[in-house]
Amino acid sequence: MQSSPKNSKRLYRRLVNLKSANHDRERFGRSGFMGLFGQRVDLLDHYEKKLEVIEDNVRAEQSSCLGKEVGAAFVSFRTRFAAASAIHMQQGVNPTQWVTETAPDPEDVYWPFFSASFLKRWISNLVVVVACVLLTVLFLIPVLIVQGLTHLEQLEIWFPFLKGLLRIAFVSQVITGYLPSLVLQLFLYVVPSIMIMFSSIQGYIAMSQIEKSACIKVLWFTIWNIFFANVLSGSALYRVEIFLEPKNIPAILAVAVPGQATFFIAYVVTSGWTSTSSELFQLSTLVSNFIKRNICRKYDDEFEVPSVPYHSEIPRILLFGLLGITYFFLAPLILPFLLVYYCLGYLIYRNQLLNVYAPKYETGGKLWPIVHDSMIFSLILMHVIAIGIFGLKKLPLASSLTVPLPILTLVFNSYCRRRFLPMFKSYSVESLLKKDKEEQNDPTIASFHERLATAYQDPALLHGGYSGNSASIIAPLLSTAEVDA
Amino acid sequence: MQSSPKNSKRLYRRLVNLKSANHDRERFGRSGFMGLFGQRVDLLDHYEKKLEVIEDNVRAEQSSCLGKEVGAAFVSFRTRFAAASAIHMQQGVNPTQWVTETAPDPEDVYWPFFSASFLKRWISNLVVVVACVLLTVLFLIPVLIVQGLTHLEQLEIWFPFLKGLLRIAFVSQVITGYLPSLVLQLFLYVVPSIMIMFSSIQGYIAMSQIEKSACIKVLWFTIWNIFFANVLSGSALYRVEIFLEPKNIPAILAVAVPGQATFFIAYVVTSGWTSTSSELFQLSTLVSNFIKRNICRKYDDEFEVPSVPYHSEIPRILLFGLLGITYFFLAPLILPFLLVYYCLGYLIYRNQLLNVYAPKYETGGKLWPIVHDSMIFSLILMHVIAIGIFGLKKLPLASSLTVPLPILTLVFNSYCRRRFLPMFKSYSVESLLKKDKEEQNDPTIASFHERLATAYQDPALLHGGYSGNSASIIAPLLSTAEVDA
Repeated sequence: MQSSPKNSKRLYRRLVNLKSANHDRERFGRSGFMGLFGQRVDLLDHYEKKLEVIEDNVRAEQSSCLGKEVGAAFVSFRTRFAAASAIHMQQGVNPTQWVTETAPDPEDVYWPFFSASFLKRWISNLVVVVACVLLTVLFLIPVLIVQGLTHLEQLEIWFPFLKGLLRIAFVSQVITGYLPSLVLQLFLYVVPSIMIMFSSIQGYIAMSQIEKSACIKVLWFTIWNIFFANVLSGSALYRVEIFLEPKNIPAILAVAVPGQATFFIAYVVTSGWTSTSSELFQLSTLVSNFIKRNICRKYDDEFEVPSVPYHSEIPRILLFGLLGITYFFLAPLILPFLLVYYCLGYLIYRNQLLNVYAPKYETGGKLWPIVHDSMIFSLILMHVIAIGIFGLKKLPLASSLTVPLPILTLVFNSYCRRRFLPMFKSYSVESLLKKDKEEQNDPTIASFHERLATAYQDPALLHGGYSGNSASIIAPLLSTAEVDA
Repeated sequence: MQSSPKNSKRLYRRLVNLKSANHDRERFGRSGFMGLFGQRVDLLDHYEKKLEVIEDNVRAEQSSCLGKEVGAAFVSFRTRFAAASAIHMQQGVNPTQWVTETAPDPEDVYWPFFSASFLKRWISNLVVVVACVLLTVLFLIPVLIVQGLTHLEQLEIWFPFLKGLLRIAFVSQVITGYLPSLVLQLFLYVVPSIMIMFSSIQGYIAMSQIEKSACIKVLWFTIWNIFFANVLSGSALYRVEIFLEPKNIPAILAVAVPGQATFFIAYVVTSGWTSTSSELFQLSTLVSNFIKRNICRKYDDEFEVPSVPYHSEIPRILLFGLLGITYFFLAPLILPFLLVYYCLGYLIYRNQLLNVYAPKYETGGKLWPIVHDSMIFSLILMHVIAIGIFGLKKLPLASSLTVPLPILTLVFNSYCRRRFLPMFKSYSVESLLKKDKEEQNDPTIASFHERLATAYQDPALLHGGYSGNSASIIAPLLSTAEVDA
């Protein structure tokens, strides 16, 4: 059933476009595969009929569901306190049978996993974790193969007809000097989308949860494949091996990290400054729009306002934080460059947040713990490097005096987890009851409850109205009395 | 104020003993230090006066507290559901300000940390964790020193007057062969008490929580200082160093573990069988009672029924489980000895639980997760040893085919944590509401609520009744109306 609402939505949009566009040329087309085969028909009639059939099917399936038990449901409560007590307490004797979660905003719901069982969500979570670890650890293998291919001799052997072209100095310079890093950047550019895809099959029921989870994935991917890949500059398996011998980590980092100081200062300028500035141009949206309009000739009037891509922006900003914290005592020259980056970032993101992006949902500050964790990790990495460097410079006293620092940082972290993290997870009873009391005498609550009954519906089903029984579309599947009981 | 209730309790008991004993010899004594100095007085009068003074002080302090804010309180609810919703939801905006916990049984309350703030409990928790880790890691150092001292030449140099004695074959055999392991056993015998002491200053408010936490501490202490100390047979720091290089762990264990098979088979007999059998004799209680009656001449008629010493028994049983799981494929000869141990254990503990021990509190199965965790740890240790042994025997295929096993065990563990652990932490709403409904029409509930008002009192304050205002002793500090508001 999942595909039919999607189909109906696409059909509905195409129908609206056809109606508004009055070209006769576009009204007629072929009904077969990709509009190339089949007999010539009036597309308007054709699509209307198709849509009616799909909607009838959906209705039929909905009515056949009516008697069945529903796997998942939205339950509304009269007070915030009652809702919270339902969320935070284990409902059934079997803790995996009745799983309660806060309902996301109506526009934020991600339907595919909505009625999935605990076991299905747990297994898909497991699969995604494994896939993510594999991608993060083995990411550099395809990149290394691509980089290996750009050795000119290899290319000349494989593609002899290119020999003349490759002998030109300019072309060879571009291919050997520019192409490998371009390939790496392109691969990195795709990673946030891959992580979003991973997170979306992980069993979350809200787009915001998916984006938060993708943000964490991209962050660790970035730290592993940009910071550690450049610092340790070996194969992925070599890096994994280093982390399997924790005793040697400080010494290895102390040798490797200072060597890459100039590279990372350059990285702040080349990647940091440019990526932040290119935010202003929204290059990818521009290019995709250009292609759509001029090549695919699709005049889609519904231009959606983009939402903030937290999952790709936050990890990048945090990576520069990591660079600042780990390099400030090794190569203080990095600091002015970072300062310029952050000032630029403040100006540009302020503009983007106010004038360009429209938030799709309230994050409620839920991304902040990621920032906190990343800072704690950076601090501990800095301590470890310091221990290694003091050891390298034969200052055992300084080295052992630095050992309490990471421990103290971890203690601070554990305090913060007890003191501040609960506030990101749930609202306190104090604030819930305050809000509940305020709303008791609010006259708008009745209309809010009315709207609530129809708020949570798969948006694909809301565009209908072609088949006769349009009233039943808005009515929820179960009557309110049934839900309350 | 903490010491005066204790004093008053001790005084009260001594007074009761004096009254019941009609010896004139005991009624008169000296009032000074340890009954040795000071003038000769009638002890009955003397103690009665002292008790009255202490009780008046307590009363005065209680009444001075009446206006002040109380740091902690027992709050009772009309329904189980209401109580659970208060426990599981964060109450104040600051999550460390109003901390809610399930109240332990009235006899189970541990008062010293009852009104301690979150910060005080957190810090004492931290201190105890550090102390525990230090004790566990550095435990063998004092033992090694003692064992080093028993080298005869060393002893002869240090105590020349023993030279003649040490030359006797029997004495020297006892000292070199028997004393070191006796010292080690004595040290090990003290550990559960030390861990109980550690746990009691960790900030818990119930004896059951203290015992559970001590049980975990003793378990890890036992695994580290019996299993790993014998397997790796080096200094504590050498063992710590091994675990800092995780890559080499399988290889090192594969060499070391099989070498100790005969030792552990003997250990099952010497330590397992004897300790279980000696349970029947309750040796420590017997000896301490003998000393009390015949040397200190204290005829304490109140003989308390002992409670099950979970914190010393469970870790020992789990250690033998660990031995069975890790050795069954290296030295299957251990299995019949373990079978005898467990059969003996079943018979003896069944008798002890039914006829000797009286449970002080309902554990509610809360110790089971410790058993589960220990089993998972044993399984993973077994897998790791298997990987190492296959590697040692040059069977790389078998070795790498074993690698998924620990991962699958961890996945199974994570599933169990989601599926079963919540049931050990709290009751489900389903079962709470069922119980609540059953009790709605129960006529005994009213009298239960009455008893509840006076159930939770520092037991030291209940023995009073010497000063005039005995009615006010039973009345709670705050009236019921105030608590409800």
